Amino acid sequence: MTQPLPELHIGVLGAGTVGSQVIRILNEQAEDFAARAGARMTVSGILVRDLNATRDAAIDPQLLTTDPHEVICGKDILIELIGGIEPARSFVLEALHQGISVVTGNKALLAAHGPELYSVAAASGADLYYEAAVAGAVPVVYGLRESLAGERITKIVGIVNGTTNFILDAMATKAVSYAEALKQAQELGFAEADPSADVEGLDAAAKCAILASLAFHTRVSISDVEVEGITKITAEDMSEAALSQRTIKLLAIAERRIGEDGVEGVAMRVHPALVPLDSPLASVDGAFNAIVIEGEYAGRLMFSGQGAGGAPTASAVLSDLVAAAHHRVYGGHAPRESVYAHLPILDSGSTQTRYQIRMVVEDRQGVLSDVAGIFARHGVSIHSVHQRNEEIPGTCIIVATTHLAREADLKAVVTALASSEVVREVASAIRVEEE
Amino acid sequence: MTQPLPELHIGVLGAGTVGSQVIRILNEQAEDFAARAGARMTVSGILVRDLNATRDAAIDPQLLTTDPHEVICGKDILIELIGGIEPARSFVLEALHQGISVVTGNKALLAAHGPELYSVAAASGADLYYEAAVAGAVPVVYGLRESLAGERITKIVGIVNGTTNFILDAMATKAVSYAEALKQAQELGFAEADPSADVEGLDAAAKCAILASLAFHTRVSISDVEVEGITKITAEDMSEAALSQRTIKLLAIAERRIGEDGVEGVAMRVHPALVPLDSPLASVDGAFNAIVIEGEYAGRLMFSGQGAGGAPTASAVLSDLVAAAHHRVYGGHAPRESVYAHLPILDSGSTQTRYQIRMVVEDRQGVLSDVAGIFARHGVSIHSVHQRNEEIPGTCIIVATTHLAREADLKAVVTALASSEVVREVASAIRVEEE
Repeated sequence: MTQPLPELHIGVLGAGTVGSQVIRILNEQAEDFAARAGARMTVSGILVRDLNATRDAAIDPQLLTTDPHEVICGKDILIELIGGIEPARSFVLEALHQGISVVTGNKALLAAHGPELYSVAAASGADLYYEAAVAGAVPVVYGLRESLAGERITKIVGIVNGTTNFILDAMATKAVSYAEALKQAQELGFAEADPSADVEGLDAAAKCAILASLAFHTRVSISDVEVEGITKITAEDMSEAALSQRTIKLLAIAERRIGEDGVEGVAMRVHPALVPLDSPLASVDGAFNAIVIEGEYAGRLMFSGQGAGGAPTASAVLSDLVAAAHHRVYGGHAPRESVYAHLPILDSGSTQTRYQIRMVVEDRQGVLSDVAGIFARHGVSIHSVHQRNEEIPGTCIIVATTHLAREADLKAVVTALASSEVVREVASAIRVEEE
Repeated sequence: MTQPLPELHIGVLGAGTVGSQVIRILNEQAEDFAARAGARMTVSGILVRDLNATRDAAIDPQLLTTDPHEVICGKDILIELIGGIEPARSFVLEALHQGISVVTGNKALLAAHGPELYSVAAASGADLYYEAAVAGAVPVVYGLRESLAGERITKIVGIVNGTTNFILDAMATKAVSYAEALKQAQELGFAEADPSADVEGLDAAAKCAILASLAFHTRVSISDVEVEGITKITAEDMSEAALSQRTIKLLAIAERRIGEDGVEGVAMRVHPALVPLDSPLASVDGAFNAIVIEGEYAGRLMFSGQGAGGAPTASAVLSDLVAAAHHRVYGGHAPRESVYAHLPILDSGSTQTRYQIRMVVEDRQGVLSDVAGIFARHGVSIHSVHQRNEEIPGTCIIVATTHLAREADLKAVVTALASSEVVREVASAIRVEEE
């Protein structure tokens, strides 16, 4: 005779798209989950804002409550899906202090208060899992926390925000403006009514900070990430990109490198970038996510998949739940905050990158020489330059692509060009990422 | 004052390319590994065949021995890198029986004796890790064993053998014959002198069995995998593939589906297949590996990276080592063999697939009708057909691509075509995988 499996009680904060899917899948596949976790998992409390607004057939109305403490108290594992910093932070801390393991998809909370949560979890012996915080069901948090624990990671380049990828993809494939693409994304539910956290790059920056902390064993906060969103990308930028066999993607980049003072550090940045059409990142379509991880021994690894949506996010939450349940029954614990490298954050001005600068200039003899002189005076070397006539009489367009140069020098070039008397307008300055 | 870290003793069986890299990296980054594992890891015994043949500067000659029991006895963790079934199996069992955790990259051993090893490990409380057995540093074993524990996996499609991918890639990009591509692979060290395990698909089949066991929670052995290698693929097949915007890849496919008797089961197959040039698998170049995992909630996930080589394989071994060391010090254990679904193995004849059949036929009125009749009589529907003249007078070429049909019916069509009087020769019959 086999022993009956132990029973674990699960509290769920939030019964929205993800929460209700988690509860439904747990009910439907109770036998499978019991076999995988080595324990029966019973949802025995669900926090909602309004008892009458939640009418999901998969959810037993008896389990609903508006009292968070009722959901937290006495549980083995808490699933936090309400998002935002407060009151999520307080609820998660309340659970961790009581030794209750927490599974969350809250990237804002992790990016802002990760160290605090980690330290309370370690002190009470609870687990803290957050696979759903980055790239939906793509197991990149697991990858960095556990699967690649033997690797010395040197760089991460990711498309980690589905909203902006959908918008840029629409601009590239349908030749629509940024405003039109954003409108389509909102109509299809890929962008929120207030899209600023996505389009300004802040969501990607939070994810970048989480990934960099894990990869480089160094505490990184969202304020350490240099951020530029996609709001200034125009239809002309996208058609210009196509002319050079490239497309524009919003990239989150975290790298370990030697700083200008000779000391190794880390640098994080989120910005739109021109990537070659034949690169793996260029073919990441729509709301998909992809993360390239470069390691000293493993070489270049890529993980990709759906970055958002109820079902993929529920999948990530459920995987974390199985791990937390297994630990509760059989011992062991989730990896603690692995901060031992304490690498300095490098000055973003010292980052080596490339720019493609498109400008409207006076159509007269010697203008190219004047423009090239501005690059040269800032120590920036030009890789290629194209000049063509434009509809505005008396002007032409120059598109200059640089070699690798210091970000600070490139920015200085853009400023100098903008104030030069031969340049009427710097139409765009977009980074080029080809490595 | 912080406590000194506990020390763990590591035995290594085999000091070849991978083993010597593992030892070198462990020495060079001892502090990093101690921080990640929460323990100092000391290599204190290395099995070699010939004491005098091993002269790696990273390896202390005092640690070398030709006595396996000396390497195993008293260790905390054993790394097995000698490959093959015996004596590897005996050594691994000896360690597991003593409660020593084992990290191995031995896919043949896992595919043939996985259940035995798992059960001995579970009984003694030891860990059994084998990330390096499939796809080098690409963490797909971790992915299936742990990161995706909340997911119901429905299908896996992978390029899991670097040798055959290198050969097919060379045939596609350099228009060389199979024999020439194999020779190049051998000269560059991507194929062994006896390449049969790779080119006949057996290596891919072992990996397919390992992945399917993990994904479907069902014991699968290599003999359950239908296997066809790449030795019959010709330069003509490759140029024909290019005509329809496809290329040929050796795919390992494992899927869960409802069998013809209405009962859910699993089916595994390894064979060359035509894949569209714009699919993610088509762009997996050279010796790279890629695995697409489809889940009911997660959707389609893809993992890719270097599938072989000393450094990537060492990276996978070291990640496993960190996990095993962490468990030894802080409790917990590697996932046990998770076999609870016990799905039946489906008859390969019932698999739904598509064929592209290229044949040399008599150049006379009505031949296409005769050929089409053969398909129809076996219940196979034609998706497209192209007819063209060929250099041999009196003949022409017909290339027919089918809709999805039963594998058994497709094979029957090929047999019937080959014996038909209007068909001079069935030049090739290659599966098409487009989903």
